[in-house]
Amino acid sequence: MHFSSVIHILGLLLIFLSATMLLPIPFSLYYGDSDYQALLISAAITLAVGFLAYRLAKFEQDLRPKEGFAVVSLGWIALSIYGSLPFIFSGAIPSFTDAFFETMSGFTTTGATILTDIEALPHGILFWRSLTHWLGGMGIIVLSIAILPFLGIGGMQLFKAEVPGPVADKLTPRITETAKILWVVYAAFTFLETLLLMAGGMNLFEALCHSFGTMATGGYSTRNASIGAYNSAYFDYVITLFMIIAGTNFSLHYRFLKGDLKAYFRNKEFMFFLSIIGLAFLLIGTDTFFQEGVTVSKAIQDTLFQTVSIVTTTGYGTADYEQWQFSSQIILFFLMFIGGCAGSTGGGIKVVRIYLLIRFIYSEVIRLIHPHAVVPVRIGKTVVNREVVANVVGFFILYVFIFSLGVFIMGHLGLDIPTAFGSVAATLGNIGPGLGNVGPTDNYAHIPFIGKWILSTLMLMGRLELFTVIILFSPTFWQK
Amino acid sequence: MHFSSVIHILGLLLIFLSATMLLPIPFSLYYGDSDYQALLISAAITLAVGFLAYRLAKFEQDLRPKEGFAVVSLGWIALSIYGSLPFIFSGAIPSFTDAFFETMSGFTTTGATILTDIEALPHGILFWRSLTHWLGGMGIIVLSIAILPFLGIGGMQLFKAEVPGPVADKLTPRITETAKILWVVYAAFTFLETLLLMAGGMNLFEALCHSFGTMATGGYSTRNASIGAYNSAYFDYVITLFMIIAGTNFSLHYRFLKGDLKAYFRNKEFMFFLSIIGLAFLLIGTDTFFQEGVTVSKAIQDTLFQTVSIVTTTGYGTADYEQWQFSSQIILFFLMFIGGCAGSTGGGIKVVRIYLLIRFIYSEVIRLIHPHAVVPVRIGKTVVNREVVANVVGFFILYVFIFSLGVFIMGHLGLDIPTAFGSVAATLGNIGPGLGNVGPTDNYAHIPFIGKWILSTLMLMGRLELFTVIILFSPTFWQK
Repeated sequence: MHFSSVIHILGLLLIFLSATMLLPIPFSLYYGDSDYQALLISAAITLAVGFLAYRLAKFEQDLRPKEGFAVVSLGWIALSIYGSLPFIFSGAIPSFTDAFFETMSGFTTTGATILTDIEALPHGILFWRSLTHWLGGMGIIVLSIAILPFLGIGGMQLFKAEVPGPVADKLTPRITETAKILWVVYAAFTFLETLLLMAGGMNLFEALCHSFGTMATGGYSTRNASIGAYNSAYFDYVITLFMIIAGTNFSLHYRFLKGDLKAYFRNKEFMFFLSIIGLAFLLIGTDTFFQEGVTVSKAIQDTLFQTVSIVTTTGYGTADYEQWQFSSQIILFFLMFIGGCAGSTGGGIKVVRIYLLIRFIYSEVIRLIHPHAVVPVRIGKTVVNREVVANVVGFFILYVFIFSLGVFIMGHLGLDIPTAFGSVAATLGNIGPGLGNVGPTDNYAHIPFIGKWILSTLMLMGRLELFTVIILFSPTFWQK
Repeated sequence: MHFSSVIHILGLLLIFLSATMLLPIPFSLYYGDSDYQALLISAAITLAVGFLAYRLAKFEQDLRPKEGFAVVSLGWIALSIYGSLPFIFSGAIPSFTDAFFETMSGFTTTGATILTDIEALPHGILFWRSLTHWLGGMGIIVLSIAILPFLGIGGMQLFKAEVPGPVADKLTPRITETAKILWVVYAAFTFLETLLLMAGGMNLFEALCHSFGTMATGGYSTRNASIGAYNSAYFDYVITLFMIIAGTNFSLHYRFLKGDLKAYFRNKEFMFFLSIIGLAFLLIGTDTFFQEGVTVSKAIQDTLFQTVSIVTTTGYGTADYEQWQFSSQIILFFLMFIGGCAGSTGGGIKVVRIYLLIRFIYSEVIRLIHPHAVVPVRIGKTVVNREVVANVVGFFILYVFIFSLGVFIMGHLGLDIPTAFGSVAATLGNIGPGLGNVGPTDNYAHIPFIGKWILSTLMLMGRLELFTVIILFSPTFWQK
């Protein structure tokens, strides 16, 4: 391990982070809040630490996979530590555990909050909170499309040929190019959503914050009642649309914008993603469409919004789905595991992996009937490499194991069964709200101290596709 | 598919079944019950149908894997249909759905019951009920050790070299030999347990029924309160010991009895199995050992009994574990998935598969660190064949998928969340009692009509290692 190079890059990341801490300041000043001070102090500290790391640790050589893993995991942790400073210094979240949880939840685009009264926070802090989502989303796009495939992880390997620009053989050269293209797409959609939300009556502050939360599939709102506070069909449908966009592979958007108008419909994963949303919507609808005291159009709107919000792992809320029948809650629970498409900002297992697992089971069945046949696993007409299949399968098993271990630990911290299952599913899948006492109308404030650290770790693991974090626990990794 | 050969063999099975229906008659007569009539009529019908099938359908040629799959699945179904006749004709269980559920639960050694008052049943019927466990257990031993490895399924592939006598290349020749050896072991343990239970004060009837339930890891009792009715430390510890024996690979017992005294301790799966029991016992103990109003020795006894009962998938009860803390219930819930050792009568995923999955994840992590290294999956020093790894991994994924689908369907039938999860885990894993409204003090009587058929199917799938049943749904399977 070349620690020096790793620390050098982490320094760079912190310098970048300190600059972003200045972005909320105009809003703080405009609304006459005093939180700009906390932001300034935080930015100064982060800059100083970042600069020291950058200058004192030399970038010694090209990064190998080992350093790649370390940069990614330690990077997300470092950003969450320093990103929590504005919350602490402003007094919005005095406890470091809570502030770290909130920031990790932001940067991993989870959206699980420990805040009990969001609207009491000053505007600069609220803006910073939503901005952590957006920055996290930027990181995830470059991570999932450019870095993880190089490291041998992640659903995007399955689309190697489809990534705009060939996947880099070494970490550095091509990544920046790919990243820039996709960031432009990401920023353009954010801008468009902001405009549409403002057209519906939100002010710039609210529109930006909610666009950050949508495009990052994060879910932090500026309102206690989340999107439900606006009680607006227009906002609901605009945000539903952009949640679907955010849950889609960004390289598909790129190809569409380049003029390949059928890009979406030729993509097996995207079509499977839409089918899942459609099916879940209809199944939940058998329960929700005909509730007493709710008009059918409002019920359709809520059902679609919640289905999309959960499967894209955004976590915005317009209805308390814990009031729905158990059957609907069970569907939402399973959607938490599926997640968005590979190469999107969504979390969870990812649609393409679920698709591949089904194909894998199918190939195993065929192999039992014809023991001597060679039965490759395919996506469409493309044969998927054995190593990639093994990686996807390993990911799924690891996901189930880590989920089980998480539920086991949370149960031992005294959570009841639905809360233990819901909190782990919602953090590991980077959704935000779960079931039980961490449902859509609750928050994570009451989770015990150790539980908050466990859930923060699960958010990080889920976000970095498990292996990136797990690998750090392997002694082999640290050997010379 | 050579249907004729399949039907011929099913006929043979039914002839055998009709003979076993005569075994409870002495108990019926001894206790002066009238249920011997129902048993006689059932035996006559079963014999007639079996004889017709045996004579009219010719055994045309050697069985291929295809016919093997069909015989196994259809065999278990046919036995459950005809095995339910005594329940129906005696009036003990008038509904065919309920009687089929109860019989399938018996033959799959699940032990889930729809009976609300077991003690009201006549002795012949009670004996028949327990006997279905024991016969099912006989079937499972030959299935898991001799048939499934030949079909390319099942954890026992992992021990090919350890099976007494080489695994057959064709279905027929060697199976009977292997089966006979293991049945002798099975019968000997059943006999020994019966003696020990009688030594503790049970009469022959009760001792036999409970030995059948133990050695088959079934769980049907002759008492409403299960083993708890006896309130006896002696019975609890005897049954705990025999549950562990029944959850162990029977070829290990055979080797031990042949004089290889260290057979158990050289076996990775068995040692892992013991470790799981020990760990779960201690973890649950942190909650249960110091309950108010319960002595520590009774608490230890109950905790050990319930832990072993669930992990071996027996399902006998001495304590209502739903009164324990959520953390303990969560552990028991996860134990339902692990199950017994391969080549035992236990259900679930099987210990060796869990062990192999952990090794597989480990090999994936190493491969990420050293992308060009060849990292085989090992058990001990033995490298496991790639196809076997793929089969085990596929089994796990399929198990999770079928579990999820089961919970989804049961949720839609109106079950609450713990009951939906508990009933599916307990039937797919062939345990018996689950959580929620199908907990250790409840039964399955209140499950909706369709739900009983779904759960019966899950019992069959779990018992036949999923693929055996799933394969029947593949169009390829039925092609010429």
